[in-house]
Amino acid sequence: MSAHTDRSSAVTVLGLGPMGRALATAFLEAGLRTTVWNRTPGRDADLVAKGAVSASSAEEAVAAAPLTVVCVVNYDASDAVLRQDAVTSALKGRTLVNLSADTPARSRDTAEWAGRHGIRYLDGAIMTPATTIGTDDAVFLHSGPEELYGEHRPVLAALGGTHTHLGEDPGRAAAYDIALLDIFWTAMAGYTHALAVARAEGVTGTELAPFAQGIAAILPPLFTEFAADTDAGTYSGELNPITSAASTMAHVVHASEAHGIDASLMRVIEGQARRVIARGHGTDGFTRVAEVITGR
Amino acid sequence: MSAHTDRSSAVTVLGLGPMGRALATAFLEAGLRTTVWNRTPGRDADLVAKGAVSASSAEEAVAAAPLTVVCVVNYDASDAVLRQDAVTSALKGRTLVNLSADTPARSRDTAEWAGRHGIRYLDGAIMTPATTIGTDDAVFLHSGPEELYGEHRPVLAALGGTHTHLGEDPGRAAAYDIALLDIFWTAMAGYTHALAVARAEGVTGTELAPFAQGIAAILPPLFTEFAADTDAGTYSGELNPITSAASTMAHVVHASEAHGIDASLMRVIEGQARRVIARGHGTDGFTRVAEVITGR
Ligand SMILES: NC(=O)c1ccc[n+]([C@@H]2O[C@H](COP(=O)([O-])OP(=O)(O)OC[C@H]3O[C@@H](n4cnc5c(N)ncnc54)[C@H](OP(=O)(O)O)[C@@H]3O)[C@@H](O)[C@H]2O)c1
Ligand SMILES: NC(=O)c1ccc[n+]([C@@H]2O[C@H](COP(=O)([O-])OP(=O)(O)OC[C@H]3O[C@@H](n4cnc5c(N)ncnc54)[C@H](OP(=O)(O)O)[C@@H]3O)[C@@H](O)[C@H]2O)c1
Repeated sequence: MSAHTDRSSAVTVLGLGPMGRALATAFLEAGLRTTVWNRTPGRDADLVAKGAVSASSAEEAVAAAPLTVVCVVNYDASDAVLRQDAVTSALKGRTLVNLSADTPARSRDTAEWAGRHGIRYLDGAIMTPATTIGTDDAVFLHSGPEELYGEHRPVLAALGGTHTHLGEDPGRAAAYDIALLDIFWTAMAGYTHALAVARAEGVTGTELAPFAQGIAAILPPLFTEFAADTDAGTYSGELNPITSAASTMAHVVHASEAHGIDASLMRVIEGQARRVIARGHGTDGFTRVAEVITGR
Repeated sequence: MSAHTDRSSAVTVLGLGPMGRALATAFLEAGLRTTVWNRTPGRDADLVAKGAVSASSAEEAVAAAPLTVVCVVNYDASDAVLRQDAVTSALKGRTLVNLSADTPARSRDTAEWAGRHGIRYLDGAIMTPATTIGTDDAVFLHSGPEELYGEHRPVLAALGGTHTHLGEDPGRAAAYDIALLDIFWTAMAGYTHALAVARAEGVTGTELAPFAQGIAAILPPLFTEFAADTDAGTYSGELNPITSAASTMAHVVHASEAHGIDASLMRVIEGQARRVIARGHGTDGFTRVAEVITGR
């Protein structure tokens, strides 16, 4: 049997945004028979040129392989695709892996829906940009039945990178995903703001970027330290008290606003720090804001 | 002449918080005659044990060396120390390096004050934690007269790490500093929030941290890309449209609030993204929020 007739080497991709196209490309490059479908037609031209089979409906796409990967904007979108009778029936007895991003609650709800319809279900999340797919840099998180994951692991491996099965709770990958997206978008928002403040001060993005890389370089050890600190509830500020942090936050607010740049983001952060100080914890570290935001 | 009697190898440190103590320690370890002073007495015991000279007043400390480094919480604090007649006169003809953090405006104002009083002035900023001082990982930014910087460069080198002179405008180091602190504290606030959300989902900080390191690892290339994008005003969303980003931001908000965790930070960020979309730029990338925050 050639790879193209071995049904276990066939895979379907629903959703051809930047990420869905990257997934389909990686499957094709690994030699898998890849069927693709997207709500809006015409997004698959380059994939078909690379050997993908273009399906004219989601149910036709699903019927073409034992494993369907759906990767659309969120679970409202994946529900719109999957929770139609024809698609749901076509999925029966097959495996569905939902790599769209959403909340843990939506993942659990989808697992429950899948169970009711005899669909074998895995949930997952992609933690790296579309450009990393098919390379060693890609990071995938998975959750759901361990055995089912093991069965499809070889096909998923075609996507490259690191795959981690986080547990049987279908919401577990999404729990990590929202926490990691929280870090990611907050950091990117801070960076975008920093670029605006720098520009107002006559510093270009290209001038600032190498120093911003320096900030990215100090985050990993601090992430480890903050995690341990938060798990232990120690909130140590010996080397950097929150009073000192709040002062530098105020500088960011003042310098931004002096240039007419919206500083609401840093105002929220400074506000959290000020509440910690007002509660008498000024010599603690920034991690103590965990109590403020969780209402403890 | 031994290192201890060569006046050019003498340095004074005003301010003995975690950072001032780290600076004084590095000077001592480099064999410099180091005089120290702090507003609140008694913070210099360990430094004196390592060979530091304890001054009983800021003016006495300043008089002990050709170069004084001040590192206190902000410029209200450095003004409180320096703008007293006895200290200002003692500084006359000597060099002052202010490594406290504040806005570019405060740095320029201090340079102007120093000029009026015949004080040779350099401004600077420290971009790495106190633990990095004296090691290769330390990062220092400097601004002010190039020649003056060159003269004191050998003594400053005792602090270890990388020193960059950014230009003659005394506010330039502070301009980079606020932009970099903006990135730093926003990222740390996002991480602290992520730890709280993860914990509410039953994921410990120690479990999340390795994946958070993965997020830190994808930032450097994105920083370079965002900088170029912002400088050029291209705001490309081809690989990650802001509609997709906003959707994941909403998941963070919903998942946080479902656990009673304050999501104001991500609400601000999602709001910025939604305004970009409402203006008709939904297929652009996140960097387009630069326009929203700068009021363009
Ligand atoms: N791009 C990245 O770098 C990246 C990185 C990590 C994770 N992700 C995640 O991967 C998923 C897909 O992202 P993406 O980058 O491909 O772009 P996206 O903009 O998040 O998703 C676009 C896809 O969603 C489909 N879609 C949207 N609403 C739909 C609906 N109501 N019914 C059916 N399909 C619908 C679109 O179909 P139409 O073409 O018909 O609109 C398109 O296929 C998202 O959950 C995202 O968070 C992306
Ligand atoms: N710690 C770090 O990791 C780090 C990293 C980069 C940059 N920095 C910067 O380094 C500077 C010093 O930071 P730090 O970590 O040492 O702690 P800090 O809490 O920011 O500053 C403490 C120092 O400021 C002094 N001070 C405060 N108000 C004063 C006043 N009105 N008059 C005189 N002195 C006053 C304190 O004296 P008392 O002991 O008398 O209160 C103490 O010496 C800050 O600007 C900070 O942003 C720190």
